[in-house]
Amino acid sequence: KHILVLPGDGIGPEVARIAVDCLKAAASAEGVSLTFDEAPFGGAGLDACGKPLPEETLDKARSADAVFLGAVGGPKWDDAPERPEKGLLALRSELGLFANLRPVKVFAGLEGLSPLKADRVAGADLLIVRELTGGLYFGEKREGRETASDLCTYSADEVARIARVAFRAASGRRGKLTSVDKANVLATSRLWRSTVNQLAPEYQDVTLDHMYVDATAMKLVTHPSAFDVILTENLFGDILSDEAAVIAGSLGLLGSASLGEGGPGLFEPIHGSAPDIAGQDKANPSGAIASAAMLLRFGLGEARAADRIEAALQAQLKSGRTTADIGGSLGCRAFGAEVCERLA
Amino acid sequence: KHILVLPGDGIGPEVARIAVDCLKAAASAEGVSLTFDEAPFGGAGLDACGKPLPEETLDKARSADAVFLGAVGGPKWDDAPERPEKGLLALRSELGLFANLRPVKVFAGLEGLSPLKADRVAGADLLIVRELTGGLYFGEKREGRETASDLCTYSADEVARIARVAFRAASGRRGKLTSVDKANVLATSRLWRSTVNQLAPEYQDVTLDHMYVDATAMKLVTHPSAFDVILTENLFGDILSDEAAVIAGSLGLLGSASLGEGGPGLFEPIHGSAPDIAGQDKANPSGAIASAAMLLRFGLGEARAADRIEAALQAQLKSGRTTADIGGSLGCRAFGAEVCERLA
Ligand SMILES: CC(C)[C@H](C(=O)O)[C@@H](O)C(=O)O
Ligand SMILES: CC(C)[C@H](C(=O)O)[C@@H](O)C(=O)O
Repeated sequence: KHILVLPGDGIGPEVARIAVDCLKAAASAEGVSLTFDEAPFGGAGLDACGKPLPEETLDKARSADAVFLGAVGGPKWDDAPERPEKGLLALRSELGLFANLRPVKVFAGLEGLSPLKADRVAGADLLIVRELTGGLYFGEKREGRETASDLCTYSADEVARIARVAFRAASGRRGKLTSVDKANVLATSRLWRSTVNQLAPEYQDVTLDHMYVDATAMKLVTHPSAFDVILTENLFGDILSDEAAVIAGSLGLLGSASLGEGGPGLFEPIHGSAPDIAGQDKANPSGAIASAAMLLRFGLGEARAADRIEAALQAQLKSGRTTADIGGSLGCRAFGAEVCERLA
Repeated sequence: KHILVLPGDGIGPEVARIAVDCLKAAASAEGVSLTFDEAPFGGAGLDACGKPLPEETLDKARSADAVFLGAVGGPKWDDAPERPEKGLLALRSELGLFANLRPVKVFAGLEGLSPLKADRVAGADLLIVRELTGGLYFGEKREGRETASDLCTYSADEVARIARVAFRAASGRRGKLTSVDKANVLATSRLWRSTVNQLAPEYQDVTLDHMYVDATAMKLVTHPSAFDVILTENLFGDILSDEAAVIAGSLGLLGSASLGEGGPGLFEPIHGSAPDIAGQDKANPSGAIASAAMLLRFGLGEARAADRIEAALQAQLKSGRTTADIGGSLGCRAFGAEVCERLA
């Protein structure tokens, strides 16, 4: 199995290196054979080839079995001809990565990191399934000096394929699916709701309910443990998944998977490129390690190797030997090395 | 000065009655003369005239100096020809209410209600200024069986007029304005950002910064006291203002103002119609009372009477003699009567 690594910008290369070390250690322990290649992307793509998604990088991504991304962006490219993030949107679209999975879970021993009171956050363990290649992000844009517009469109097929991902995920978890929309205002939300409702009878083991996006933004703060799987469209998913992420206590701990149909998936920590601490061995590689586990599970179908990484990460976090952002005193490399030892 | 009251649905009539009592008490204490009328609206409008915004109600609203709304909506009208909420959207649009003001403040003595840890929520006192008559809410909609779309449009003039409201509000508060958009993705957000930037030099006492909507959704939870005034477009404002509201501890405590240019403003508590407790004297009228104060301040320019109501409400909440939802044992009417006594 061949993995393309896009180290990207800021702390991206540091955390990607740890993720690769963990992938190698877990793969060798489970007898899985992996090969790796690297390519420039984001700001690094702009620096190397003048484009955030160079053609060669895209070609390499297409022919890989999975793609791992560190992080993109930073003020260095504020005046670049294109934004580094454009590369990310293009990559999602080119690889047809319509399903973004963002699990949010409070790690045992780290409940204290949450901004929420302990009794509010206790038991929170949810998965956000975000549609990633439609909606306002990719609709027609008009940009004049006096007016501008963005079009939000969805087809029933686009809704159905992401909804199926969410139904299946719920069926493998606690069987509860909350579809989030703004059907009291938006036409696309009404299509969303009716399409999701039509699929429900096919998933008898899943209980479906619907919630408005504003109510969901509230409930994530007041009662996050009420959710199992949340299904929503692109822009709502962008907002709600970040809101949900901080509830777990630290952005540095969480990973994500973006999946298409058949082709390679993209796996990346949810934190940004954090240019202020780049190159200082301060970054928390936990999110990258969690993403490496998702790569094995959802990208390569190697569930045992994925379980191994997740168990090692959890044990390491529980030991208290962590990076400074979550109360420990290890650097990025030392933390990564200790997790790798546990993987052997 | 003439006030039109729209009691609306669910607990709307109960809390509106208390608000009117408070308006009368504060007005008479300050020597302001007020007259009142009532009209059906929302579900009550559907019941009375088959429409959520009956024409006669709209006429009465147009000729009032201010409009007070209790709450709209409820499952009773799930199968009605139109949704009660449609009346609200129509009223906002017909009266040109482009500026929605949602203050969020943790009341002294009620910090414990917040889902956030005490040190996180301490000092939170922010105002969300939401554009209310543009964006995805009012853009062209297409609704087919296979595809649907909603158009988000903004003109520079629409952005400038709501931005001016926010700059002025910031100038009268702590001088900090955060404009929220998704300029890394949306054309309308880029127009939003450049328009706001162009106005900044006119408000030398205000420090302006920009934040993406996803980052804002996080920071509202991790560090709400970092905000003073938040300026944003319609849909982002819908989501963020509800998220911010629960941080203060209870939706029942907060009021809102929707203002246009010249015509009457609309003032309503931010809570919903809560049909499950309607008619049981259990509703918390604090949000309605806070909205009555906003009506006096922003709708009628009667700042002294507004101050009087706010002081009475705060003193009452501090006394601990509250409704059950926030830990006391008074009913809606008894709580309202005690606030009115303080107003005399
Ligand atoms: C960088 C940005 C375009 C992107 C998005 O909005 O999708 C990011 O916020 C994310 O959630 O992955
Ligand atoms: C009822 C609904 C249409 C409305 C909105 O989305 O604007 C409400 O959520 C609000 O914020 O006042």
